[in-house]
Amino acid sequence: MSMLIKGALILTQNKDREILRGDILIEGGRIREIAPRIKERAETVIEASGRIAMPGLVNAHTHVGMTVLRGCGEDLPLHDWLREKIWPLEARQTPEQAGAAARLAFCEMIRGGTTAFADMCIHDPKYVFRAAEEAGLRGMIARGLMDFDSADFIPRVMKEMESSLGYGNETVRPSVAAHATNTCSEELLLRTRELARKKGLKYQIHVSETRREVFEVLKTRGKYPFEYLDSIGLMDKDCVFAHGGWLTKKEMGIAGKRDLSVASCPVSNLKLATGGICQIAELDSLGANVCIGTDGAASNNSLDMFESMKMASLLQKHHYWKADAVRTQRIFDMATINGAKALGFECGSLEEGRLADIVILERGPNMVPGNDLVANIVYSAGPQNVSDVIIGGRLVMEGRKILTIDEKEAMEDAEEAGSSLVGRQA
Amino acid sequence: MSMLIKGALILTQNKDREILRGDILIEGGRIREIAPRIKERAETVIEASGRIAMPGLVNAHTHVGMTVLRGCGEDLPLHDWLREKIWPLEARQTPEQAGAAARLAFCEMIRGGTTAFADMCIHDPKYVFRAAEEAGLRGMIARGLMDFDSADFIPRVMKEMESSLGYGNETVRPSVAAHATNTCSEELLLRTRELARKKGLKYQIHVSETRREVFEVLKTRGKYPFEYLDSIGLMDKDCVFAHGGWLTKKEMGIAGKRDLSVASCPVSNLKLATGGICQIAELDSLGANVCIGTDGAASNNSLDMFESMKMASLLQKHHYWKADAVRTQRIFDMATINGAKALGFECGSLEEGRLADIVILERGPNMVPGNDLVANIVYSAGPQNVSDVIIGGRLVMEGRKILTIDEKEAMEDAEEAGSSLVGRQA
Repeated sequence: MSMLIKGALILTQNKDREILRGDILIEGGRIREIAPRIKERAETVIEASGRIAMPGLVNAHTHVGMTVLRGCGEDLPLHDWLREKIWPLEARQTPEQAGAAARLAFCEMIRGGTTAFADMCIHDPKYVFRAAEEAGLRGMIARGLMDFDSADFIPRVMKEMESSLGYGNETVRPSVAAHATNTCSEELLLRTRELARKKGLKYQIHVSETRREVFEVLKTRGKYPFEYLDSIGLMDKDCVFAHGGWLTKKEMGIAGKRDLSVASCPVSNLKLATGGICQIAELDSLGANVCIGTDGAASNNSLDMFESMKMASLLQKHHYWKADAVRTQRIFDMATINGAKALGFECGSLEEGRLADIVILERGPNMVPGNDLVANIVYSAGPQNVSDVIIGGRLVMEGRKILTIDEKEAMEDAEEAGSSLVGRQA
Repeated sequence: MSMLIKGALILTQNKDREILRGDILIEGGRIREIAPRIKERAETVIEASGRIAMPGLVNAHTHVGMTVLRGCGEDLPLHDWLREKIWPLEARQTPEQAGAAARLAFCEMIRGGTTAFADMCIHDPKYVFRAAEEAGLRGMIARGLMDFDSADFIPRVMKEMESSLGYGNETVRPSVAAHATNTCSEELLLRTRELARKKGLKYQIHVSETRREVFEVLKTRGKYPFEYLDSIGLMDKDCVFAHGGWLTKKEMGIAGKRDLSVASCPVSNLKLATGGICQIAELDSLGANVCIGTDGAASNNSLDMFESMKMASLLQKHHYWKADAVRTQRIFDMATINGAKALGFECGSLEEGRLADIVILERGPNMVPGNDLVANIVYSAGPQNVSDVIIGGRLVMEGRKILTIDEKEAMEDAEEAGSSLVGRQA
């Protein structure tokens, strides 16, 4: 299938970060040509003059299955929120309800210009894979295992994890995950890591989200989380580490040296009052691959990557008392190019040969004037500006209408799943 | 003119913070009745079943004339940003360009569910008043004077200020403002304050936005800004103090005792790396009237009050390492009821007899499920959910179409004003 996007202002995110005005020709799911005027015919033509074309945003850490828990346990700190609210609710959640949550999440992502995601599920992710395939999103999905050191549990969960590795396809890929350093035994960490290496899959884990986690790991394993994981040979550039809110300088050095992907989730960290800030300015300068995630809607409470870009930037300025702590362009890179690298997909920039994951924005009054187009994306744009979304050359939203999922039905199903789980009156 | 909103889920913000399902009857610009089913006829009927009706948001501190400077001076700290970029550009700005900026700002506000605002202009605000009247917004507008202690300047600026007090009407009111404690002489502070009292108008001023300002006031006047202003008799409950990012405990006590309105502008403070956080949790508990502002689009870079509510809340959780630092409901109060009190309008809640400033929201996937409706407003909603806006019983946006201003023309004029000011190529 071929597609031609005509007359757009193109934020390429190529090597020179060029901004061009012109046409984009898509064939076989990839960008074939970008030029001022392409005469070739295409099956689908999108008139985009006056609009902006940019790479789809990459959400490098989320939990789509938790979307039906949006608004549960408000004003609770992380540990109470998990233990009193979220884990009991998640334990009752069926795989079908996780699927309903995922369908809702994917509608929200598409509307928010997100075209790729990295997800961690607590249950069998069968219905989450199915929802992602239906929605047309690109992503990687892992079952996030934890055992709290009950070693007899490991063989069973490992078997369940292995069975989930058969799901998906080239666009929605399986991945391997351990939940966190303080909820997994060393054996589970090593076995999951080995499995990922054996299968050639990406590895995901939460690290240094809270002080409590850092304290527990220090106490039980004698090292800070990144140092500990490094000492057991767990770290490699095929890992995505979520949060990193309480990293020491030494740990940030490890992240840089090992070319690790660190997914900062600033909104969630603030919402749960974890107190720590992922120092993406320093991580970036040390050579880590910094990317940005929303975390789940239960702790955010949205999946809006525009908001998370803005928050990631503002928090660095605030934390360092330095208005140029991270340049605006670099934040946009983190949400596009770096996210793509973390997930291992050839998306994140609009260049010939790259995957055609493209978002088209309509400039409402909030994006005028165009004094600085990249700043307009990072600090001013929002889901209200997203008009069309293309993933792998497939039109998944056109003129603000989602084409792949029945959005009304997805909202109704999620509302029902939410109220039956949380026990509200219908 | 009468209007009937039918079948909405109504977030009343009344004394008991009731959430009701029913109809709202509007007559003569005010809410006449709220009931499960109103049979009375009305000239305009809005079918709102499945949608949410809430009080319009009140932006308690902004500079609409700066909207055409959005994206200017990115990654600069406040003092450089002002001195190198903003002030030279503002000095060149014509009153007509400020009017074009204001029209753009009002389009953005309406789309973002903001129905009332407090503004400070650097120039003659004639065209800003005119734009607000055209847009149908409610607000107060002041020329913000500064003299940097050049006393011969005062008679002239006071005369200009006085002439601007003739603008406006019951809905768009004039107000008096001095720029800040470190940019105004004591004489200018006292004379502006006296003028506001004489005319019965609200008084606006920036206070404790930066450490530098606090340092300068301490050095030249021997007191912290709030203490200083209190010592010269400047403070009263008819004042709106913007920012308050560097207040001492003693100053917060003064704010509480004097029932001052403090407009926190969290996004702008972070963007300009001022380092300070307006401690709204403490101010609120001490009895100050805490409200929320976006500040100007040049330092935000948006006028989105949903975003500013979320940021105000998240920053308190982060600052105090306390997930319930300010309850979600209280944040919503600050952006509605408290803002209305600060500006002196009977809006901010949906109750019989109050002004009919109402926003109708469509629940997209980002606002599902409805586990906590107030959390959905504060943390999940955004401009993409705003479908209709009513101000003083007048429909200013219907089905996402702005009825009062020609939005396309406003965007084009603002683009032109921006590029001619900033000197970009067209």
